[in-house]
Amino acid sequence: MFASVFENVRKKCPLIHNITNYVTVNDCANIVLACGASPIMADDIEEAEEITSLCGGLNINIGTLNSRTVRSMLAAGKKANELHHPAVLDPVGAGASKLRTETAKRLISEVKFHVIRGNISEIKVLASGSGTTQGVDADVADRVTEENLGEAAAFAKAFAAETGAVIAITGAIDIVADSERAFCIRNGHPMMSSITGTGCQLSAMTAAFVTANPEHPLEAAAAAVCAMGLAGETAFSRLTDMDGNSTYRNYIIDAIFRMTPEELEKGAKYEVR
Amino acid sequence: MFASVFENVRKKCPLIHNITNYVTVNDCANIVLACGASPIMADDIEEAEEITSLCGGLNINIGTLNSRTVRSMLAAGKKANELHHPAVLDPVGAGASKLRTETAKRLISEVKFHVIRGNISEIKVLASGSGTTQGVDADVADRVTEENLGEAAAFAKAFAAETGAVIAITGAIDIVADSERAFCIRNGHPMMSSITGTGCQLSAMTAAFVTANPEHPLEAAAAAVCAMGLAGETAFSRLTDMDGNSTYRNYIIDAIFRMTPEELEKGAKYEVR
Amino acid sequence: MFASVFENVRKKCPLIHNITNYVTVNDCANIVLACGASPIMADDIEEAEEITSLCGGLNINIGTLNSRTVRSMLAAGKKANELHHPAVLDPVGAGASKLRTETAKRLISEVKFHVIRGNISEIKVLASGSGTTQGVDADVADRVTEENLGEAAAFAKAFAAETGAVIAITGAIDIVADSERAFCIRNGHPMMSSITGTGCQLSAMTAAFVTANPEHPLEAAAAAVCAMGLAGETAFSRLTDMDGNSTYRNYIIDAIFRMTPEELEKGAKYEVR
Repeated sequence: MFASVFENVRKKCPLIHNITNYVTVNDCANIVLACGASPIMADDIEEAEEITSLCGGLNINIGTLNSRTVRSMLAAGKKANELHHPAVLDPVGAGASKLRTETAKRLISEVKFHVIRGNISEIKVLASGSGTTQGVDADVADRVTEENLGEAAAFAKAFAAETGAVIAITGAIDIVADSERAFCIRNGHPMMSSITGTGCQLSAMTAAFVTANPEHPLEAAAAAVCAMGLAGETAFSRLTDMDGNSTYRNYIIDAIFRMTPEELEKGAKYEVR
Repeated sequence: MFASVFENVRKKCPLIHNITNYVTVNDCANIVLACGASPIMADDIEEAEEITSLCGGLNINIGTLNSRTVRSMLAAGKKANELHHPAVLDPVGAGASKLRTETAKRLISEVKFHVIRGNISEIKVLASGSGTTQGVDADVADRVTEENLGEAAAFAKAFAAETGAVIAITGAIDIVADSERAFCIRNGHPMMSSITGTGCQLSAMTAAFVTANPEHPLEAAAAAVCAMGLAGETAFSRLTDMDGNSTYRNYIIDAIFRMTPEELEKGAKYEVR
Repeated sequence: MFASVFENVRKKCPLIHNITNYVTVNDCANIVLACGASPIMADDIEEAEEITSLCGGLNINIGTLNSRTVRSMLAAGKKANELHHPAVLDPVGAGASKLRTETAKRLISEVKFHVIRGNISEIKVLASGSGTTQGVDADVADRVTEENLGEAAAFAKAFAAETGAVIAITGAIDIVADSERAFCIRNGHPMMSSITGTGCQLSAMTAAFVTANPEHPLEAAAAAVCAMGLAGETAFSRLTDMDGNSTYRNYIIDAIFRMTPEELEKGAKYEVR
């Protein structure tokens, strides 16, 4: 059903409010446009709720956060909940500083997110100390591999059950899970980690996909993860031996722009556990 | 005369102070360099007036505004007026929030702008409630088309008369007007709207063009709008069927870098009403 | 020894804390990744010291500074000193405003930097008023040329002796000096000045090189400067007559990504004075 999920993004052109970091914000805006949605970036408390109300969905990314923007994240998140708009959280760097860990945890406790997307370390940090996931947590290493995939999927499901959010853990193998089902996704290319912000871009695009498919957040998030990975594959196949990570960044966004719903359906590599 | 307008930018290399959003700021800096001018980005109140004084022109863009930067915009704008430096306003998202609408209106009431550039919705928001334009305003739809072009041009002239600024309304057809004449411009390509920040880039470049041609703000602004549209055409003609909006963004800036004054003169498509 | 210096970056993958401007931050992150290191951008006082502690090196860039971020720069710098982490300063726009000049001078007086990198005007501003360099200062023009290279190298050595930092002055000819030796470097291409942020990118990459080679800050900084210049040459050789400064920006980062330690060793053009 990924084709119809993607078609909905292109048909509905959802407007996405992004409160995000200044490192990758331009790429986030361009990938949201590439997939067929429209971005608005606005981080001031004086307009955060109003912009959230104007949009169909919200993407909160805590990279380069500060006390001014954290207030706006909380206000926008609560407003999105009030309006039943999908909200996505990207807990960039959770675990790297108390400010990031505590902000991410506070956001999760005060705002209901439809999707939380991070790497395995970030997600583990968010789950640590919480009742249901503690046991699972301890068993999952810092990388999702074929060996620990079963445990990692169980961990993602447990954390999804606890938070009520779809949990997307991205890495060499991606896991996108609600409390009952986990999509294990094998799209992508290792060179994607040589670009700043592929994760941020994916979170912004996930907000677009979920906003256009509010009845199917799990499938929408999984489709966005597959689309990003497939774009990484398509873009890699275009690289010459002179091209590096900067051209690769451009080609990934280009690949999303050119991708058809049918190509996504056909190119998506996943199993459901 | 667009050739000589553009030649002046390349000869005089004006220094442009930009207080702009963090989404498209890098592209704004690169397009200012591409056209032959030099950008400085500085948004803190402690240095805003000093940087304005050092530069030849000022570009204020209210995307991702906040209370800290609004103060700097006002201070820089007043300093530019005092020094008789050209000032350009890009009221990004006016109408989308009270903060943006009120900030844009406050800037217009406290600072004399030489050019105000926005899309038709933004410009209509700024003109609403004002005496002379209210009647015209109501007749102009949300898009400038061949059908309403006459009315839209009359609206632009009326708002130019009221503000004393050249009004640049960009879209499928662009209008650049002072109180007496309106350039109706048909350069550009629909795919330009798939890139974040072509409007922001145009405003920054307009500041460079007007600063290098202070006696002819109308022609300078019209030349910048034609240059941007022509770059969109040139860049589009280079795209392969693998390229998307990210490569297109790069090629548009490249096209400005490579454009000669003669090519601009020859490629500009406009009529004066 | 530039090959082994570069190999150390690729082997050790140092983590670099960047407090930098929002104009060129994305390019800084991508070039740090391209050379084999990892960037973290974090500018809030509540996490600055913690992020510095997590990283191996620090890069402070005062473009788009404000009172909030200046506090973080000072705190991060002092923490880096305490932990004996290499710290690099890029005094962007020193001399353009009192805020920038005073902030740069304050940073130098309160933090020990391993490398200070700027253009000749910025470095002269920092050295002005200081005892040992005042005489030399007056003799050095605003551009380093073959004619004044001897004096400029002497100036760089004197300022290095005074600050204890390696001084990197970049321009048509680059000088990288400690108190005793000056590398005079002739890599690069004039078109590099048509891109925003090649200096910022170089400073970020220098932090990576010095962090991976803490015993050899002079050689590490010189190797980074040569690598940037060589990338500018490689990237220029790829340009078609349709390509401009935006594509050039991408190709420079690509060239760093593809550059081997041996290519750097072979392509570096310098003499030691």
